[in-house]
Amino acid sequence: MTQNLFSRYLPILDWGRRYDRDRFVGDIVAAVIVTVMLIPQSLAYALLAGLPPEAGLYASIAPILLYAVFGTSRVLAVGPVAVVSLMTAAAVGNIVDSGTAGYIAAALTLAFLSGLMLLTLGVLRLGFLANFLSHPVIAGFITASGILIAASQLRHILGVEAKGHTLIDISTSLWSNLYAANPITILLGISATAFLFWVRSGLKPLLEKTGLPPLLVDIGVKTGPVLAIVATTLSVWGFELADRGVAIVGVVPQSLPPLTLPSFSPDLISQLLVPALLISIIGFVESISVAQTLAAKKRQRIDPDQELIGLGAANIGASLTGGFPVTGGFSRSVVNYDAGAKTPAAGAFTAIGLMLAALFLTPLIHYLPKATLAATIIVAVLSLVDFSILKRAWAFSRADFAAVAATILLTLLLGVEVGVTAGVLTSILIHLYKTSRPHMAVVGRVPGTEHFRNVRRHTVETQPHVLSLRVDESLYFPNARFLEDQLSRYAADVEELTDVVLLFTAVNEVDLSALESLEAINTRLRESGIRLHLSEVKGPVMDRLKRSHFLDELTGEIFLSPHEAVQTLDKSSATTA
Amino acid sequence: MTQNLFSRYLPILDWGRRYDRDRFVGDIVAAVIVTVMLIPQSLAYALLAGLPPEAGLYASIAPILLYAVFGTSRVLAVGPVAVVSLMTAAAVGNIVDSGTAGYIAAALTLAFLSGLMLLTLGVLRLGFLANFLSHPVIAGFITASGILIAASQLRHILGVEAKGHTLIDISTSLWSNLYAANPITILLGISATAFLFWVRSGLKPLLEKTGLPPLLVDIGVKTGPVLAIVATTLSVWGFELADRGVAIVGVVPQSLPPLTLPSFSPDLISQLLVPALLISIIGFVESISVAQTLAAKKRQRIDPDQELIGLGAANIGASLTGGFPVTGGFSRSVVNYDAGAKTPAAGAFTAIGLMLAALFLTPLIHYLPKATLAATIIVAVLSLVDFSILKRAWAFSRADFAAVAATILLTLLLGVEVGVTAGVLTSILIHLYKTSRPHMAVVGRVPGTEHFRNVRRHTVETQPHVLSLRVDESLYFPNARFLEDQLSRYAADVEELTDVVLLFTAVNEVDLSALESLEAINTRLRESGIRLHLSEVKGPVMDRLKRSHFLDELTGEIFLSPHEAVQTLDKSSATTA
Repeated sequence: MTQNLFSRYLPILDWGRRYDRDRFVGDIVAAVIVTVMLIPQSLAYALLAGLPPEAGLYASIAPILLYAVFGTSRVLAVGPVAVVSLMTAAAVGNIVDSGTAGYIAAALTLAFLSGLMLLTLGVLRLGFLANFLSHPVIAGFITASGILIAASQLRHILGVEAKGHTLIDISTSLWSNLYAANPITILLGISATAFLFWVRSGLKPLLEKTGLPPLLVDIGVKTGPVLAIVATTLSVWGFELADRGVAIVGVVPQSLPPLTLPSFSPDLISQLLVPALLISIIGFVESISVAQTLAAKKRQRIDPDQELIGLGAANIGASLTGGFPVTGGFSRSVVNYDAGAKTPAAGAFTAIGLMLAALFLTPLIHYLPKATLAATIIVAVLSLVDFSILKRAWAFSRADFAAVAATILLTLLLGVEVGVTAGVLTSILIHLYKTSRPHMAVVGRVPGTEHFRNVRRHTVETQPHVLSLRVDESLYFPNARFLEDQLSRYAADVEELTDVVLLFTAVNEVDLSALESLEAINTRLRESGIRLHLSEVKGPVMDRLKRSHFLDELTGEIFLSPHEAVQTLDKSSATTA
Repeated sequence: MTQNLFSRYLPILDWGRRYDRDRFVGDIVAAVIVTVMLIPQSLAYALLAGLPPEAGLYASIAPILLYAVFGTSRVLAVGPVAVVSLMTAAAVGNIVDSGTAGYIAAALTLAFLSGLMLLTLGVLRLGFLANFLSHPVIAGFITASGILIAASQLRHILGVEAKGHTLIDISTSLWSNLYAANPITILLGISATAFLFWVRSGLKPLLEKTGLPPLLVDIGVKTGPVLAIVATTLSVWGFELADRGVAIVGVVPQSLPPLTLPSFSPDLISQLLVPALLISIIGFVESISVAQTLAAKKRQRIDPDQELIGLGAANIGASLTGGFPVTGGFSRSVVNYDAGAKTPAAGAFTAIGLMLAALFLTPLIHYLPKATLAATIIVAVLSLVDFSILKRAWAFSRADFAAVAATILLTLLLGVEVGVTAGVLTSILIHLYKTSRPHMAVVGRVPGTEHFRNVRRHTVETQPHVLSLRVDESLYFPNARFLEDQLSRYAADVEELTDVVLLFTAVNEVDLSALESLEAINTRLRESGIRLHLSEVKGPVMDRLKRSHFLDELTGEIFLSPHEAVQTLDKSSATTA
């Protein structure tokens, strides 16, 4: 039993016991490739989050190790990602000015709170809560975030100050500071951006034509940012561009991740609670989709609740070692998987690589221009921007379209927090609206068969004194009264009506409100001299109805099928006629 | 067309044209009986709302007339009711002190806002929104309100000052002022309460034994409050009890309802918006249930959206004539119906009766002790208190029980507004939780038939390489990922699996999130070498799926029935084997 409990919370006990040389080789190769890719990415996302560059490296080390111990995915790589970094900047930037010690402390607190929430959700097995973030809402949110991120990074390309967390704020701020733009920074920034776009769109096909294996092509493309960094850093150093106004990364400490303590000021915590919750949910949803996609390829299994624990531990780790909120990243996990990572040990080896970088490589990036990092971010996030979700949603259903459009619009105009909240609420309201007016069809018998179909769509036989009504929805409080209204209408409109048969084929649930509506319908119909019957009631629904007095009071019968109902009612009316 | 439009918004055009002598007699008799019953009730509910007694009469006049013009129920009697009066006291009492001119103005504003909201909901045909207040939540709310109302009236029985809108506030306030209780008031109050209880429990059976027709028995019981009022007023007047500390109604102006203008202070409006919305919804739900119950007895039809317009007009009328929020009352409507009211003209005649009362009877109630009115209220509302809903909900489903219990507890402890809001939110959250983890059953064929049943409940035949899974819920965002998780689990657990068949019998809807989950499932299963099939897909769901590329990408087929699926898959595996 103890063994099982440990195994549940420590997946490492499972794969760790079977570790061998083959797995070790696969893991080490993947780790080297991922490390090279992560160094520029980590620096860039720290910049995006408004933090010093080393925070990005630190945020990639402890979290990767902790996830390796607690997480269930074999190949997920945890660290800073674009959307979560943007949300961090928005949350912390609303409270403290960037560049201050308070800002760094608040980012630690945010990671700690987010980690605590993820852990709690995991231990309480509440992972399903993340489902309320629907796919189209996430797609819309990520597209809008990509635009916000790219816009926020333009200031580094232009070399000006700019603030704001909404598209309008960022644009007006950029515009009013444009007079101070630095031409050399612009030149560097635009060159780096153009080069990185070319790497994606030009170099990739070129390498593919040479017949290189896809993995090497991918590695070639992923080293693009490293090349851009080396080239622009050398330019700044060689031509002393820092003295001519080009903003550089500057002094980065040579150190292992430091031990840090997040601020526990009650004021700060209360301001960060909602952002932390949103970051937790967005991060979890992003991470679990990547993990599930990669696990499915090898028929491995991801436990969503254990994933919450893994990500929670990773975020608490980040908050104690100078990082900021992290989650499982898409591109790094795919590279890890493609490069042949076999177990979470690959993550541990990546962490070692990043520790070496933090110890020995940081002096080399002193002259790295911020414009280059901004270019890396812009090129990376523009691949997230995908408005096709709007078209797709429009074609599929207007309701989904409304939720996506609201999410995109409100994220751009009012920021990430309002946007994602509005997306969730819109989805829930639309669902409640739809189920509150369920589809109902008056049905009749297809001549010569026992099948009953909608009278509006098919040529069917009906009897004037029997109304057969199919309800295409579970019956519960939002639609209980609708059913009452509909039946009052039929009872008032059809003069000769003596029997109503409700078809319960698609009724998966009946709650107490619906039960009371059914009782009211039964009573009202009885007072109008009409009997109420049910047919095709499912087992669980029947069990539920038996726990009430409804079946005793029902004026009519429970039929196995509408066919049986009509046959019986025909006979009984024949005898009474 | 113009005719139709007028008729839609003015139901009076419908019944007014067919008015005759028979209907007139029925209406006038009902009006006399209802008027006698309404005079004490109106005074008492004004006291409950914290307003001068004449406000209760005024609130019964214009609203009844306006509802007669715009409402669809033939017999609904609109005016002040217990729960709405309590909510008025809570809403206005939170902002202004009772007994001030500001308090009266705020009550007018509350009625005006509530009227405007009801009208708007009606014109926009949003009456379905009221459905989110589930039956058990309403039952719990009314029970808790009844207790709060009775507790709040105890101060008049004891003759002390007491404040508060929660059970704890009221009790502590009563307790700390108990030293100032007035013995004569207590004597009057307890006698009146005891008498009124006896009228209900003792007089009614007595009159029934004499063989009087039920209508006359009812009238006898309903005149109980009038007798109590006459007796206690005479005592106070005869023994000059007002000089000995008995609180009396005092000077009531002799006047028709005055023209009044609600305050439109933006500050006041913003404070009253939420209470007005809650009062509108509670009032509408209470009113429409009464209207529908009574209409069904004569196969008449109630239009919920037109009812909103009728109640909206009634509340705006109340706000312009010295009243306060009103709605359709249960007891007065039933009396009206039982006494033979045929058309809304009965309401108009009642209004005339109340106008006469306001003009000529008000001097007679000068010495009416407030304790008597409090006794009337207590006896009336204690009949609303019914904890059996808790037992009923517990027996039926734990989810419904949780919603009722939360509503009762929070209404008592935190007041009416928190209570009813919590009830609505609890119901919605429970629903989302339930549908987020839909019931799924692995099914197999009942030997010798084409029926497929749950493998856990029935002895059925299955094939090791085919998984037939029935999903008992519409597929939408809260459960989309759950389906992915479940299928990942099966794919990982069953080694020899080659085909998965999803049974869509109970799937009434597939939203874009669920579509994307189905696509992800399809892709992941394909990567594990498993095909995905669907069976028994409903017409509307199939139409929806055709609007996407899912059907092109589906690795398997769409079968008409699980039987067809298994037959086909048996053959195809036979040929590939």
